[in-house]
Amino acid sequence: MHIYLISPSGAVRDKAALRLGVKRLKQLGHDVELDPDALSTEQRFAGDDDARVLAVSRAAASGADVVMLTRGGYGLTRTLKRLPYKAIAASIKSGTQWVGHSDFTALQLALLAKTGACTWAGPHACADFGRPDMDDITLACFEDMSQGRGEGAGWKLPAKDLEHLPKKNLLAENAPLWGGNLSVLCSLVGTPYFPDVQGGVLFLEDVAEHPYRLERMLTQLLHAGVLAQQKAIVLGAFTDYKLTPHDKGFKLPTVVDWLRAQLKTPVLTGLPFGHVPTKLCLPVGKPVTLLREGREAFLLWAHPHHGH
Amino acid sequence: MHIYLISPSGAVRDKAALRLGVKRLKQLGHDVELDPDALSTEQRFAGDDDARVLAVSRAAASGADVVMLTRGGYGLTRTLKRLPYKAIAASIKSGTQWVGHSDFTALQLALLAKTGACTWAGPHACADFGRPDMDDITLACFEDMSQGRGEGAGWKLPAKDLEHLPKKNLLAENAPLWGGNLSVLCSLVGTPYFPDVQGGVLFLEDVAEHPYRLERMLTQLLHAGVLAQQKAIVLGAFTDYKLTPHDKGFKLPTVVDWLRAQLKTPVLTGLPFGHVPTKLCLPVGKPVTLLREGREAFLLWAHPHHGH
Repeated sequence: MHIYLISPSGAVRDKAALRLGVKRLKQLGHDVELDPDALSTEQRFAGDDDARVLAVSRAAASGADVVMLTRGGYGLTRTLKRLPYKAIAASIKSGTQWVGHSDFTALQLALLAKTGACTWAGPHACADFGRPDMDDITLACFEDMSQGRGEGAGWKLPAKDLEHLPKKNLLAENAPLWGGNLSVLCSLVGTPYFPDVQGGVLFLEDVAEHPYRLERMLTQLLHAGVLAQQKAIVLGAFTDYKLTPHDKGFKLPTVVDWLRAQLKTPVLTGLPFGHVPTKLCLPVGKPVTLLREGREAFLLWAHPHHGH
Repeated sequence: MHIYLISPSGAVRDKAALRLGVKRLKQLGHDVELDPDALSTEQRFAGDDDARVLAVSRAAASGADVVMLTRGGYGLTRTLKRLPYKAIAASIKSGTQWVGHSDFTALQLALLAKTGACTWAGPHACADFGRPDMDDITLACFEDMSQGRGEGAGWKLPAKDLEHLPKKNLLAENAPLWGGNLSVLCSLVGTPYFPDVQGGVLFLEDVAEHPYRLERMLTQLLHAGVLAQQKAIVLGAFTDYKLTPHDKGFKLPTVVDWLRAQLKTPVLTGLPFGHVPTKLCLPVGKPVTLLREGREAFLLWAHPHHGH
């Protein structure tokens, strides 16, 4: 596979991680091409806005099998008015798969809103392939995705989910999968870059956000009517926040309980996705089936009628 | 004046500050009434949602001259579906002034959206009146507000603003003043609690938000079309964030410069408002005149045609 690496967000500071990520991708047999501005820096960004938008255009014109981000950070929001959506969508139609997470959510959702084109929520070259102890599942899911073999993914539901979930096994069918980083997603609400998805499966993750902030963001989606329009909400990992003595028992499960009390839409947790080593590759914009079988949940996308 | 104190958001942990605040308000000759749940606690909140909504209802029924918050925090967002908007608006029509900031922005903007009623962005009993070295200007502005004497406020513009501002002196006339805490305001975008203000003067402040997050929030308002619809954007204090080595020169002035480059609407800075000791009392929802005379800016509300 020809993999084209770009940095549309934050500057790459950990060059050793990028070197290791590139080495590992090459060891897997891939042909890795680094965009000329992948290591550029301008303040906290990987080059100025012009440079980063041009990098996205070059990626769209690269003819690569996979366009992967070196890393996330912050930077795509600033460029949303200027991104080459048509060129990205055309590259996807020609077979290029775009993959990333975190700040990449801004591009993924804006592209979905503007063109309907599907991308992948998945690993980055630095934080995932550049880890000395890269996660086997992340690697296997990426390889499946890049070779068009992936049909879906499953995970074990926490015991608490079982009490909450409806008795039926089929939670969603032919439902567009969408979502990503909660902070980035919420920063698009009310703008032309927020996709209008009805009857979808919305997955969410975040990092370094206190549960009260997570609740405030989920409440925005609730009050905006976004959550009730979905067939299911699937929560991934919410990590690296700090509780304080002031919280006095207010914590992440409190937020999930509160959300469930406000909403008829089922809320599943435990999705292996987020700022964590184990990361599925999830097709953003693609219709999926969401099944629950005992303690297992399954997201299936290759064959919507598979397995039931 | 009869001042009624409520805690609709976070639990009051600093009881000494509240005692000092109450003492100072009494020394000014005010009759201070503490809501029965003002010192309640439930996790990080000043009582559960039911208790806090009832406290707001009692305040609306109190017949007080001023309803003031003990403190902000987080909590009003959760109760937006249940707040007694009509009762609050009726109390305001009967002469009660509601004053607060930070999390109170959620109530202020939701009330404006639902009823058009005006409230005051101003001090809290703990953080402002409870400071050992309470600010003279904050005190004077509050006293003017509570006695219906305030006609406006002025402040000195930073030199950089002068290059940016249009040559004309009259920047806005008969323009609804609105705004408050940027994070809270952005968390209402796309919901029924976000007021649709055209041709207004939007003021903003925030605390403990890194400049990149401030930029992302301002960009949301930009992309949502909110900023271009205003006559002016007035920035108050943005405090208590930490820059990191990764920022490499990206800082708050970078964000202001970037915002100005995206927008024809004038952006003024230096408004004495935010999580700082010196705090004007600003009428949220009231038509104002915004003037610039040399290095001074003036917000006038009592007499829209005053002074020019």
